[in-house]
Amino acid sequence: MKIYINLKEFQEIIKMEMQLAKGVRDILPKEKIVMNRVLDTLRQAFELYGFVPLETPIIERWETLTAKGGVGEESDALKETFKLKDQGNRDLALRFDLTVPLARYVAINPQLKLPFKRYEMGPVFRDGPIKLGRYRQFWQCDIDTIGVKGMLAEAELLALVQNAFQKLGVDILIKVNNRKLLNGILEQCGIKKKESAIVTIDKLEKIGAKGVTEELLQRGYGSEQIEKVLRLLREKRTLKELKKEVNYEEGKQGLGELEELFGYLKTMKVKCVEFEASLARGLGYYTGTVFEVFAVGSSVISSIAGGGRYDQMVGKFAGGNREIPAVGVALGLSTILDVIKAKREFKEKSLANAYVIPIQTVKESLRLVQKLRQKGINADMDLNGKSIGKNLEYASALGIPYCIILGGDEVKQRKVLLRNMQTGKQELLGIIGVIRRLKKK
Amino acid sequence: MKIYINLKEFQEIIKMEMQLAKGVRDILPKEKIVMNRVLDTLRQAFELYGFVPLETPIIERWETLTAKGGVGEESDALKETFKLKDQGNRDLALRFDLTVPLARYVAINPQLKLPFKRYEMGPVFRDGPIKLGRYRQFWQCDIDTIGVKGMLAEAELLALVQNAFQKLGVDILIKVNNRKLLNGILEQCGIKKKESAIVTIDKLEKIGAKGVTEELLQRGYGSEQIEKVLRLLREKRTLKELKKEVNYEEGKQGLGELEELFGYLKTMKVKCVEFEASLARGLGYYTGTVFEVFAVGSSVISSIAGGGRYDQMVGKFAGGNREIPAVGVALGLSTILDVIKAKREFKEKSLANAYVIPIQTVKESLRLVQKLRQKGINADMDLNGKSIGKNLEYASALGIPYCIILGGDEVKQRKVLLRNMQTGKQELLGIIGVIRRLKKK
Repeated sequence: MKIYINLKEFQEIIKMEMQLAKGVRDILPKEKIVMNRVLDTLRQAFELYGFVPLETPIIERWETLTAKGGVGEESDALKETFKLKDQGNRDLALRFDLTVPLARYVAINPQLKLPFKRYEMGPVFRDGPIKLGRYRQFWQCDIDTIGVKGMLAEAELLALVQNAFQKLGVDILIKVNNRKLLNGILEQCGIKKKESAIVTIDKLEKIGAKGVTEELLQRGYGSEQIEKVLRLLREKRTLKELKKEVNYEEGKQGLGELEELFGYLKTMKVKCVEFEASLARGLGYYTGTVFEVFAVGSSVISSIAGGGRYDQMVGKFAGGNREIPAVGVALGLSTILDVIKAKREFKEKSLANAYVIPIQTVKESLRLVQKLRQKGINADMDLNGKSIGKNLEYASALGIPYCIILGGDEVKQRKVLLRNMQTGKQELLGIIGVIRRLKKK
Repeated sequence: MKIYINLKEFQEIIKMEMQLAKGVRDILPKEKIVMNRVLDTLRQAFELYGFVPLETPIIERWETLTAKGGVGEESDALKETFKLKDQGNRDLALRFDLTVPLARYVAINPQLKLPFKRYEMGPVFRDGPIKLGRYRQFWQCDIDTIGVKGMLAEAELLALVQNAFQKLGVDILIKVNNRKLLNGILEQCGIKKKESAIVTIDKLEKIGAKGVTEELLQRGYGSEQIEKVLRLLREKRTLKELKKEVNYEEGKQGLGELEELFGYLKTMKVKCVEFEASLARGLGYYTGTVFEVFAVGSSVISSIAGGGRYDQMVGKFAGGNREIPAVGVALGLSTILDVIKAKREFKEKSLANAYVIPIQTVKESLRLVQKLRQKGINADMDLNGKSIGKNLEYASALGIPYCIILGGDEVKQRKVLLRNMQTGKQELLGIIGVIRRLKKK
């Protein structure tokens, strides 16, 4: 059987085939240029604080990612995990975060020297519903300290977070709380199903006391208990105030940890921190400190980083009964890029500082462009023999700041014509003059 | 039903669950540190030559990766492609290279300014048999110029390759050939099924003239034709020699292109190039220049980069009938790392230059380590209150060059004890002295 199809239809089919997969996207040069700068800055900050890079694979065994003690079977992350098989029919999955792979790494490397301070930056995958700004593949940047029980690890991480965002030029506020304090308060108020209550309480700032009360009532919690909890966790509570009111052991322990942490942060001059009694963070595996980072004075209101202490997960993964303390922070790269974008648009389409236009001077132009590159100047050149007009248009579209026009006359004079693309000003300069001018930029 | 299992068995199961997926691996800090340096150096070289970064997604539509005009249905890459589905039951695949995604990108962005010079570095996936050193996830670094028909694009790429490896401290040899020349020669020798013959001829250097003859005979080619071909393609042929013997139009065109290219390379002082008449490269989509890069004087004999011109593929992907010329090179990151490793072992397990050991001086030590970081010195600190001995052992295991011991006495004297971990020499220094010493490193 033959199928008759007209050319236009055929082209439509071809075009359709060429679409992106649903929920993923290309990171265009103008965005990737900024993203690379951000990643470089972060890496530099991480390494300044003694963290080393690790790269775990994107494909993990399905059993690893679904192991108990990790995110748990209830987690959205797990429901949204991409499954696949290899040619040996083995069940595999694309990693949905960088924490479970880290726990797996520590588990299979028992000889690892602790503390192990590592960072990992790379794409993770979630087969979730597509919302504005939510993609099925997105970058995470994680920093974790494995093997430190005390608050010094948290203090170091938060100092690093402050330093990293300072370098990125982003003002931040870090809200800090402690799960032990939260658990103690819930216990004290007679609340039993704590995990589920915590998920609702975490929304306090978003939906207010009324919203939280309604949701907790719906979830079957008693109104008396709810009232007690909300009184203790109301806005702007200070550690000092709570110290008088918290009387369960776990709560006291959490308070003690917070006081210790704030002491270290003061010594380390980390000033952008604030205690927030209702902060919980959704994930079940946190065991102590939790924190969330927000950009101050930005139109982006969602958090740009967050993390906390998870002292049980890694140990469970390692299969033994020993506790392997851990604390980490995940930076949301795309939200950070949104914050930077809100300040100034991404528009760099080229990293070249100069674009050489030969006019029947290919050889001389090749030598010139090579000379510039030798001097460390990012340089590009017309390779298509286009007209001057077309070339200027191209360089302008790409945002290249300078064009260098090289005709036969210039070659004879041992000069080149340097055109400032912003002002349109042209100068006849020797090669040394050009290099000096371009290096200054 | 209950299953009884002893603790040891249970731990074994847990451990098994925690294994890596088959054929993938963790890139450990000591290797990732070197890899990051290599990637930084490459990026710097790519940008020096006017290339911009692009990041395409790891997940593509199955239809995109299997589209005709790409690697073709016969390709190993395609047979080894990981398949998966999303929650909408759509057929997806993990990318097996960075070239097809680039073609897809150009196809769906018809407004793109040409030439488009981009680089992309990232993992690709092949569900193939596991051989020594072959992984199912591995990094590729691609540089491609889309939209330049002439040999200037090749010249620029090869100059860039020379420059990048110079920066990496790797001596290279680039072997260059042209598919048109090869096609012309086959035509001239009366060989019809050219694609298949080319695959065998590509092995000339590896299996010798005898091996190639046998394989071609087996594949049904006539002995007279084979003899003719091998006479023309024998080792150390020069362009000059071939110019006298090649008389088919396509072959002459290939020779002309090679001469033009070698002319530009001479102007650009790219000296590490050599014409190699039998070089073909397996992939079907090459249409002109092909080249392969080898490390000279290294124990690693496989090629460390390779590429060529593929003028038809991108146009076919774009769905129209227009030709979109393209030329590119793919750098094999893991082979490059092998070459570097063959010269010196990777053993850096930390990037810290100093490790602070507090002796009951946590606060002062925190201030000190923060001071060092402010001065741009990568610094780490004991967070666990370990003994001096344990701390020195830890710093030594991680290869950190200096330890700074800070006890109460030192604090009183406003000094610190700086220990050179290689020599064991200890000095009592003021903070300024320490900074000066560490900055020198």
